[in-house]
Amino acid sequence: MKAAVLGFGNVAAATIEHFMRNEDLIRSKVRTPIEFVHVATRSPARAQGRVPQGCRVSNDCWALVNDVEVDVVLELTGDVALARQLLLQALANRKHVITANKALLAQHGEEILRKAEEVERSVLFEGAVAVSIPIIKTLRESAAANRISSITGVLNGTSNYVLWQMSEHGVDFATAIADAQRKGYAEANPTLDVSGEDAAHKLTLLASLGFGVPINFGAVEFKGIEAIDQRDIQFAQRLGYRIKLIAQARMASSGLFVSVRPTLVPIASMLAQVGEAMNGITLQGDLQGAAFLYGSGAGGRQTASAVLADLIELANRGGSANTGGAFNMGFRRSHVATRNVHYSREHVAAFYIRLTLDDQAGMLAKVSQVLADTDVSVNVLLQDVGHGGQTDLIAITHKTTSRQLRNMLPKLQEAAGPGHSVVIHPVLGEVD
Amino acid sequence: MKAAVLGFGNVAAATIEHFMRNEDLIRSKVRTPIEFVHVATRSPARAQGRVPQGCRVSNDCWALVNDVEVDVVLELTGDVALARQLLLQALANRKHVITANKALLAQHGEEILRKAEEVERSVLFEGAVAVSIPIIKTLRESAAANRISSITGVLNGTSNYVLWQMSEHGVDFATAIADAQRKGYAEANPTLDVSGEDAAHKLTLLASLGFGVPINFGAVEFKGIEAIDQRDIQFAQRLGYRIKLIAQARMASSGLFVSVRPTLVPIASMLAQVGEAMNGITLQGDLQGAAFLYGSGAGGRQTASAVLADLIELANRGGSANTGGAFNMGFRRSHVATRNVHYSREHVAAFYIRLTLDDQAGMLAKVSQVLADTDVSVNVLLQDVGHGGQTDLIAITHKTTSRQLRNMLPKLQEAAGPGHSVVIHPVLGEVD
Repeated sequence: MKAAVLGFGNVAAATIEHFMRNEDLIRSKVRTPIEFVHVATRSPARAQGRVPQGCRVSNDCWALVNDVEVDVVLELTGDVALARQLLLQALANRKHVITANKALLAQHGEEILRKAEEVERSVLFEGAVAVSIPIIKTLRESAAANRISSITGVLNGTSNYVLWQMSEHGVDFATAIADAQRKGYAEANPTLDVSGEDAAHKLTLLASLGFGVPINFGAVEFKGIEAIDQRDIQFAQRLGYRIKLIAQARMASSGLFVSVRPTLVPIASMLAQVGEAMNGITLQGDLQGAAFLYGSGAGGRQTASAVLADLIELANRGGSANTGGAFNMGFRRSHVATRNVHYSREHVAAFYIRLTLDDQAGMLAKVSQVLADTDVSVNVLLQDVGHGGQTDLIAITHKTTSRQLRNMLPKLQEAAGPGHSVVIHPVLGEVD
Repeated sequence: MKAAVLGFGNVAAATIEHFMRNEDLIRSKVRTPIEFVHVATRSPARAQGRVPQGCRVSNDCWALVNDVEVDVVLELTGDVALARQLLLQALANRKHVITANKALLAQHGEEILRKAEEVERSVLFEGAVAVSIPIIKTLRESAAANRISSITGVLNGTSNYVLWQMSEHGVDFATAIADAQRKGYAEANPTLDVSGEDAAHKLTLLASLGFGVPINFGAVEFKGIEAIDQRDIQFAQRLGYRIKLIAQARMASSGLFVSVRPTLVPIASMLAQVGEAMNGITLQGDLQGAAFLYGSGAGGRQTASAVLADLIELANRGGSANTGGAFNMGFRRSHVATRNVHYSREHVAAFYIRLTLDDQAGMLAKVSQVLADTDVSVNVLLQDVGHGGQTDLIAITHKTTSRQLRNMLPKLQEAAGPGHSVVIHPVLGEVD
């Protein structure tokens, strides 16, 4: 099987380096030998001497995807617009494709899958989500007989590292980001990661695999961690929770709910144990029950592990499309197209509410009254006085809906009077 | 694809029940429709009315495996001797086989794999180990490009439940077993589970998948939890550990080490979070780093999830053997046969030592001296006086070897004098 690589950034370089390093091992696991025949990159000089014997290095991406000799194209560019064109062309030329590009798939996945169905070729992307966690294969194959009820994950290592630093060392967001940048966990511009957008890209793919819906990035509501306050981390801790950036796709009676938000997670839950820049995913299925998977979410070597697994899989499919073609996302595409899936924007959860306001007598009673009047039932209510003349009122509600909170909020704000601020985060239940 | 089932115990009944319940979902995920055509069981009456329309129910196992119409045989009997004969016959008839039978595979796996290679058929067994954890597929496919350095798991739910009860509620072994039996977590005769043998069966399969060695149950040393004392659970807790029945396969410079033993696990590690009757596995690979997978280890519904995943996989392989045949364990069988793998019986670890003896002055110094004289370096040493005139001396050593401990032990026992007892358990490191 002849493989060619688009790009020679960290992931591409690591993929080829570790393929060569473990070549004897890989050879012992494939029916059809794998050979790298072409690497196309903007900076060919960078790749010289770092590819296998006989592998061409060029800057000609189009020659690569049009080369009749190539069986599979590995798209490892990190680009979106050009990568889309190249993958569509590779598929048009009846090549299988492997990519680690979540942004590309989240935004142009349907177009790529349609083409792959038409030409009966495989699109594999284990490296696109939580690389050291085999979540794509688990959803597509291992949990295939299950009706999935929820997929809940820590999918962005950068955000998790920042929140973990804030929680472990009591530093503020800016300090934690600077530290993450120093350690290589955050980009110079960390927006894509800390805004929740990257996690939303990944969740888009998991929702499609788990629930048999089209890839639909627009259906994901996401909110990042930029505004997380050290106070909330500490209040959460006092109440038995950690704040994590949680991506969740959940099938509810009102429809499919797909959201990325800072969320309070019970300290004893597996997801709360996901520290540093790691990833973790809890999967609920009607047969298997709950499963939890944990591992690295990024890194050249780790991504190479996932990309090479896809390559080995293709080599063992004997060039046939089997689970590819119409089945690249597990479900048959014609089935996905005819299902009428309703998306719900209603967040059904317990909520953490922090209301900060100038010290005034009787505020706790007043707030309790507003919550009672608006049918928001409260589980925990505490008052923390004395931050420069300010009081924090913290409530954790019983399970309610975001609609109910929207009804309550103006009345709460009216009661709080001028100069107040309010923060609201969902709280993950034990079985969510 | 025509499937037939040997047996109609809990797992077989659940497999068929949940296949029927989720049939529309499963149909949307397979290229080739799946049909159950025959269930053979000793008690056909039990299966009447609980199989799909048109599926024959009989007590004729041999007719089933000899039926030319059948493409795949699901062996879900729980038997070993007869199951072996039936599976060999099914393979001889060029049928694929799916089994959840770890005892069968641990003891007769090589014979079955040899036959499957000869006839180029698949042997799938995701239901044989930690059913809700896709560990077979992860080792065989997702981690395929990795050199695995260790597989470390809680693989027996019964033992884990018993140890968890002892730890949470301070009860002794007998009380915890009785409770596990009442709750259905332990058999009337729990020996297979609490002796470590069941975990050893499972570890045998994981070691073969991870390290490319023949299935070799005889190479696994196992020790159960029958002798675990409440005192050791409490001392472990004081020192920051939980006692778990840990199954570990590890590649060391001295060879492949494969063992099941009660082991102290650091409380902050993922494996320590595996409570109740759950399973968890940590996998170390040179590319992916550490991954941890957690889920149910047993149960009819959960095992059905794994068995049906195997069935769906076969239906999508289009009847071809692809990763089956010579590759049922990931590695090509000819490669496994020619490798010269040395097994090591040397346990390299830190160790927990409890020495219990009559109160005597100066024992701590005396014991320290013995350890120093025999080059066993100690990390923690504590003394607990006053259990009816008895003293417990607890040591946790630095990393050492079981050989070193065997050298030390007679000297320790001599120093302790008559009436003493000694308990030794390995301690898992942060990166084991």
